[in-house]
Amino acid sequence: MKIAIIGSGNIGGSLGLIWAKAGHQVMFSGSRHPEKLDSLVAKATGNATAGSPFQACQFGDVILLAVPWPEVDQLLPALEESLEDKTVIDATNPLTPDFIDLAIGLSDSGGETVARRLPGSNVVKAFNSVGANIFQSESRMFGDQVPSLFFCGNDPAAKQVVATLISDAGFDPVDVGGIRSSRFLEPLEQLWVEILKSGIQQEFIFSLLRR
Amino acid sequence: MKIAIIGSGNIGGSLGLIWAKAGHQVMFSGSRHPEKLDSLVAKATGNATAGSPFQACQFGDVILLAVPWPEVDQLLPALEESLEDKTVIDATNPLTPDFIDLAIGLSDSGGETVARRLPGSNVVKAFNSVGANIFQSESRMFGDQVPSLFFCGNDPAAKQVVATLISDAGFDPVDVGGIRSSRFLEPLEQLWVEILKSGIQQEFIFSLLRR
Repeated sequence: MKIAIIGSGNIGGSLGLIWAKAGHQVMFSGSRHPEKLDSLVAKATGNATAGSPFQACQFGDVILLAVPWPEVDQLLPALEESLEDKTVIDATNPLTPDFIDLAIGLSDSGGETVARRLPGSNVVKAFNSVGANIFQSESRMFGDQVPSLFFCGNDPAAKQVVATLISDAGFDPVDVGGIRSSRFLEPLEQLWVEILKSGIQQEFIFSLLRR
Repeated sequence: MKIAIIGSGNIGGSLGLIWAKAGHQVMFSGSRHPEKLDSLVAKATGNATAGSPFQACQFGDVILLAVPWPEVDQLLPALEESLEDKTVIDATNPLTPDFIDLAIGLSDSGGETVARRLPGSNVVKAFNSVGANIFQSESRMFGDQVPSLFFCGNDPAAKQVVATLISDAGFDPVDVGGIRSSRFLEPLEQLWVEILKSGIQQEFIFSLLRR
């Protein structure tokens, strides 16, 4: 697939590299440091280019949105038209300006907010509550366990596409419903922060156990 | 320990039985059907009795609150005094009257609400987002994995007590911070509902994987 990365930081940059190495065509965009984009392209060994967010949205069939929340309102109006009919993966977290708390929740969510800003796109919430270290490592495996990656959205075809990309990234895709379920995936990021603050020494991830 | 069960339904009844079988002294209370309480006492093979919620609160050193949310406001004023200086495990979910959505969240939580109603108690949020089927089965194991049980509260000593009861119930206790973290544990129950609605055939639980 042709994947646009909007926000090539710890999450976007690392996921883009995973997908490039899995054989997808990736365009990185959105870094305050151009040399960062060049570095990602070099690491992607042939499957990646760099451009502006606008160029990336025109290039991509699937777009990963992985910018800090304050940039979402700045970026989306200019990108909206080039994102029509495309699948947009919302990996953002709707945090307060100090990055400490969720700014939206309970009767709304970041995912639903992004969906309202992009009414012509198919927004799927995913990748917002996994530590970047998991994406930056060689493998997603936890012992012999493939970790879960929870995702939600309203459009079944878009969710199929995202489920494939989740699998290609080494996770087990777990469908948690409509885009409204972003109200439950965004607090999961806060739970992740709390566990980090508790002083855990190992890498960790929330996963579904089944029996 | 002496454990009071307030609300002896699927969650409270099953947890009370687990703890009775683990050797704790349990008093069951709070069922619309008195014969249900008798049945639980019989299954507990010697370590349990039944009584009113008030009697149970006087009996217990630790109290498990596992009633539907609308009953919380009805019960707590009468129980508040007998719960002073005791550890109260809040296993409730602050749902809307139709039981569909969370009624509280983002800048408040059910756990913080219960803590405000019981200012003299040490409230610890736990057991609110695990399916009753897990408590009702012979074992908590998922293959060779001990599943996580997330808990939070403000008082370290009360959290130690609850961590012990979580272990005695067969789970790995995972501390997620102060009672404020109830804002992240209550949406986890909603995520549980979404996964159930997705048609999953197996029993499941959210757990922390570590590496």
